[in-house]
Amino acid sequence: MQTSKAKEYKHVCKRACQRAVDRLKAGALAVDAVTAALVELEDSPFTNAGMGSNLNLSGEIECDASIMDGKSLRYGAVGAVSGINNPVLVANRLLSEAQKGKLSAGRIPPCFLVGRGAHDWAVNHGIPPCPSEKMATKFSLSAYKRNKHKMELAEKVDTGFNHHSKKRRQASETENGSGLLDTVGAIVVDREGNVAAAVSSGGLAMKHPGRVGQAAHHGCGCWAENTSTLNPYSTAVSTSGCGEHLIRTMLARECSSAMQCEDAHQALLEAMQNKFISSPFLASEDCVLGGVIVLRCCRCSDAQPSPDIQAILVEFLWSHTTESMCVGYMSAQDGKAKTHISRLPPGAVAGQSLAIEGGVCRLVNTPTTVD
Amino acid sequence: MQTSKAKEYKHVCKRACQRAVDRLKAGALAVDAVTAALVELEDSPFTNAGMGSNLNLSGEIECDASIMDGKSLRYGAVGAVSGINNPVLVANRLLSEAQKGKLSAGRIPPCFLVGRGAHDWAVNHGIPPCPSEKMATKFSLSAYKRNKHKMELAEKVDTGFNHHSKKRRQASETENGSGLLDTVGAIVVDREGNVAAAVSSGGLAMKHPGRVGQAAHHGCGCWAENTSTLNPYSTAVSTSGCGEHLIRTMLARECSSAMQCEDAHQALLEAMQNKFISSPFLASEDCVLGGVIVLRCCRCSDAQPSPDIQAILVEFLWSHTTESMCVGYMSAQDGKAKTHISRLPPGAVAGQSLAIEGGVCRLVNTPTTVD
Repeated sequence: MQTSKAKEYKHVCKRACQRAVDRLKAGALAVDAVTAALVELEDSPFTNAGMGSNLNLSGEIECDASIMDGKSLRYGAVGAVSGINNPVLVANRLLSEAQKGKLSAGRIPPCFLVGRGAHDWAVNHGIPPCPSEKMATKFSLSAYKRNKHKMELAEKVDTGFNHHSKKRRQASETENGSGLLDTVGAIVVDREGNVAAAVSSGGLAMKHPGRVGQAAHHGCGCWAENTSTLNPYSTAVSTSGCGEHLIRTMLARECSSAMQCEDAHQALLEAMQNKFISSPFLASEDCVLGGVIVLRCCRCSDAQPSPDIQAILVEFLWSHTTESMCVGYMSAQDGKAKTHISRLPPGAVAGQSLAIEGGVCRLVNTPTTVD
Repeated sequence: MQTSKAKEYKHVCKRACQRAVDRLKAGALAVDAVTAALVELEDSPFTNAGMGSNLNLSGEIECDASIMDGKSLRYGAVGAVSGINNPVLVANRLLSEAQKGKLSAGRIPPCFLVGRGAHDWAVNHGIPPCPSEKMATKFSLSAYKRNKHKMELAEKVDTGFNHHSKKRRQASETENGSGLLDTVGAIVVDREGNVAAAVSSGGLAMKHPGRVGQAAHHGCGCWAENTSTLNPYSTAVSTSGCGEHLIRTMLARECSSAMQCEDAHQALLEAMQNKFISSPFLASEDCVLGGVIVLRCCRCSDAQPSPDIQAILVEFLWSHTTESMCVGYMSAQDGKAKTHISRLPPGAVAGQSLAIEGGVCRLVNTPTTVD
């Protein structure tokens, strides 16, 4: 990651954390706070989501986004949608509309819309459209030109030397490998202990039009599940990386279910190793690129200071097999967000090794006052 | 189910079984045999898949389909694709293209394409387009008119009596409840013991344009996993029913993983009860409509008649919460397919109770000769 880009990433992560915490302090539930964080991340021209997303093979922007509410266990998603600069707002709206029950004549409301239909539904529900040309940036347009040139070169070499396709398929990498997997995601727990997760992505650079990645795929891009009789912990996960790898391994759901074990750090380490890097679903892949942010929480079992005050123990962890990943975190008790560029340990090979870090905090909640 | 429709369903199931067995006898692998079965099911004007699919709110046909190969554990899917009368061929081709490795300039091939992009990819890969008007039938067009009329009536009642939306959302059912959930699916095991599963659907009648259901969703519409060090059994599952319910519960994958228990019948019963009807993911739903066909197999543990001859023990089960479900099954040893209209037990309530049936067969395979 270039230093200039790292600085921008840290800034936008900070702003996204602040935005979510502001909403929480105003009494919003987790699902709305996580949406607010995503809007900030999508609005940054430096991330591959919303504004500034990667261009596809035809030079167009098509975005994926999804959201999951740990309380209702509902999910909303859009795939390959153009002309909407905050796809997460559509995902959120699909979720909240579905919660209202059936449509006229007993029709079941959709949870996943794609393409033109998703765009039209969004506009009909008051989400403003955005001309596609306004969503491209100087940076995304010049990356598109460079990638296109590389592809043409690779295909020329190919036709020259090798008529049938083995070589074509091993040609040099596009910029996918060097930073353009920068899907964004967020996870939130609110004062009631509800969790929510969301993810948004412009997808792989030079993807085929209509390609949908993990960010729109249930169980793959994000997952959130409140504690229940079956689950001692509430968990929320958001993933980033190569969509096809994350779809085939359903990494968000796998990490979430792994987090029901006692040792969170060990559970995440094993999930990333066994369910991702060494997953039987990716046996043919030698480079498995992805990252996750994970949150789990439970009511503190130690004596509460008073019956009116409840404390929630929150663990926040992240792990990735990519060279680097930018993370930010903040609680309503903090004055500002902390951010960090996590990197693989020296000598580790991207796509084959992982980094894992995290921490614990204890949130004290006084439900009788609004902060 | 009307008697005339039941007869047609049995016929088409028979033909689909025959088609798959013909391919298996010619040496095809499970993934190609299952595709052949699906093509036959899509081609029937009586099923809600391919030709004769439900029309959406705009009077258009948009199809979903997916396929999974238990050997490679790869998945291919298309969502909301118009103008292709055999969507399963696109899903199959996505799977086989991805198996060839990376595209030029190191790009990762897509596993899931939607809308116009999916259509164009299909045509570029030699799959013939079909004018949309040719995919509608007299039956699907008249159902569309009736549904549209019902919707208009329901919405009129609504505006007359109740300005805000509670009542609107409880109005009388469209034809979704009475037979138009008829997604098609198939599951196959080949002579090498590889399993494959596929599913194809025109989606709910009067769905919003761009709505994608379980048939395109990884883990929800179909699942196939060969035996491995982790799994004693090879399993294949295909689902049908209300897409949103099947997505939220990931029913195909849940049934597949349940089938690793010893008692197949009990395992499927519990999965349908706990992971579907009483699933925490559907806590707000009072009517949960779906059906599954399930296949699991393992090498026979009893002494083989000769080292050249291997026997595979195959269990085939089905279960549904809908009023009825048509199933067909056939082995390469059979002269023709058996078909059956499975119905809920008398007095059972659709959406709350289930039917479950199935059987076992022992396939003897002589790998040195082609049948």
